[in-house]
Amino acid sequence: MQDFYPSRVSDKPQITKRKDPVIHTDRRLDHEAPLSKEQLNFYEKNGFLQIENLFSEKEVAAMQKAIFELQDSNKHTQSDKIIREPDSDEIRSIFSVDQDDEYFKNIAGDERLLKIVNHLLGSDVYIHQSRINYKPGFSGKEFNWHSDFETWHTEDGMPRMRALSMSIALSDNYIHNGPLMLVPGSHNYYVSCVGETPENNYKQSLQTQKVGVPDNDSLKWLVEKIGGGLSVATGKAGTITIFESNTMHASTSNMTPYPRNNLFMVYNSVENKLVEPFSGAGKRPEYIAVRKTTEPLGKETVLK
Amino acid sequence: MQDFYPSRVSDKPQITKRKDPVIHTDRRLDHEAPLSKEQLNFYEKNGFLQIENLFSEKEVAAMQKAIFELQDSNKHTQSDKIIREPDSDEIRSIFSVDQDDEYFKNIAGDERLLKIVNHLLGSDVYIHQSRINYKPGFSGKEFNWHSDFETWHTEDGMPRMRALSMSIALSDNYIHNGPLMLVPGSHNYYVSCVGETPENNYKQSLQTQKVGVPDNDSLKWLVEKIGGGLSVATGKAGTITIFESNTMHASTSNMTPYPRNNLFMVYNSVENKLVEPFSGAGKRPEYIAVRKTTEPLGKETVLK
Repeated sequence: MQDFYPSRVSDKPQITKRKDPVIHTDRRLDHEAPLSKEQLNFYEKNGFLQIENLFSEKEVAAMQKAIFELQDSNKHTQSDKIIREPDSDEIRSIFSVDQDDEYFKNIAGDERLLKIVNHLLGSDVYIHQSRINYKPGFSGKEFNWHSDFETWHTEDGMPRMRALSMSIALSDNYIHNGPLMLVPGSHNYYVSCVGETPENNYKQSLQTQKVGVPDNDSLKWLVEKIGGGLSVATGKAGTITIFESNTMHASTSNMTPYPRNNLFMVYNSVENKLVEPFSGAGKRPEYIAVRKTTEPLGKETVLK
Repeated sequence: MQDFYPSRVSDKPQITKRKDPVIHTDRRLDHEAPLSKEQLNFYEKNGFLQIENLFSEKEVAAMQKAIFELQDSNKHTQSDKIIREPDSDEIRSIFSVDQDDEYFKNIAGDERLLKIVNHLLGSDVYIHQSRINYKPGFSGKEFNWHSDFETWHTEDGMPRMRALSMSIALSDNYIHNGPLMLVPGSHNYYVSCVGETPENNYKQSLQTQKVGVPDNDSLKWLVEKIGGGLSVATGKAGTITIFESNTMHASTSNMTPYPRNNLFMVYNSVENKLVEPFSGAGKRPEYIAVRKTTEPLGKETVLK
């Protein structure tokens, strides 16, 4: 298959224009969307969108309870799906929660979320990756700048930009406890990164990403020349942040006593299923990049 | 001399109440202050105060020019007064600028600043330490939580809490480029830290502070129990942030392309000059902790 977005193939970075729509349903059908025209415009322009109060307070409280129960029950679990902090044993992420846990499976297939995602991706969807991120107070380390798509494309063989990330904040995100930083408009440009992909890179990159990180000049260009500066995705627990697969983002360390937790799910179009990794290297494990369970979400509900 | 604020002497942290006034001029003389009653109340309650527009735009532009000229001219200088980033050769701080450079000496003695400082410290003052902090885009590392006074007391022999820091922002401080985080009200409590002071600790601590850092429980207590949460000192270039010697503060790394630079000067009361370090260890060098040039600032101007 042709590689529309080559990366890690040259010793010089390159910035090219996006070759895919941002909203994959024809904009003439905006009136059918579960989002307002303003929301759609914002997402298309900036590459992300925040929504408050989509879940009730009761639902958010239940999710918060559920993630801590899962964390507690996995305190001593040895599993590749459980990522710990580089400097301590604290759990940083638990992967594949939509597959391993009925409760989170139901959230992934929540009708309110699906309606939005189906519209933005213009098709049926499945979960490409899910995880809970725990950023504990004091010890949560930073995530370097990256486009998720660059990794999914290069390391997982995701062909096109037709996926999105859905982050449900499960603690209050303040300006000071390591919130998500996004580069508005960056989803419209693809930074071809320098370097090669080491074998089994994911074992390193899930703790500290070093490959697939844009060079400083490209990042500066994105921040300064597109004109959007930087946005910081703060919001109270329950706030949803949707960001396009190619939107450049990062987060600083959390030095505060306030934890920063979220449920993170990647929806991919069923028309954009994974092929062989474009890096030529081996595939990442199923719990990071789903290849088997790609049935459209929400269909079984309809058939009931 | 009696040690009113012992630290690094026990293997258990301890929190005690402040034993010194915050504003050292009698509050009945508020009307003589160059600050409003609201500003004085804010400083007394929170341990810090921000002031915009004290300097003109022209003055701020000149200061910005001056710090870069100094940085450029010291690019290859080998000097203990020049601190570089742990991971690169970029200059992180230049110390003692009020002594080595006529331009910065004049800023330190600026009448507008002195009037404020003299009132808050209730006496004549001198510069205990001065430096320019350069926090370059992308590579500026974090500063861990600390009370400056804890270090000045333990390592430099500053007897009482009768000093303050004056930070003049020389680039815009955003919420995302590693701004100063302060714990409001923390200046009213003294955290006696765990550990001992290694010999020549300053050589390590100016890059990454490890000793004199409060334990997580004490910090959590300060943030949550005093009730002030956390404050983030953002503001445009030229904004002044005054913070009391014992106010707990930190800053995260700067992952953005935006640099964060400031001119930082510590004013100490002439009635609070340094004695022997309370740690019992050796003295830090003169460029970090002034003992020789403690003549009251501003007096020579009056005598002209």
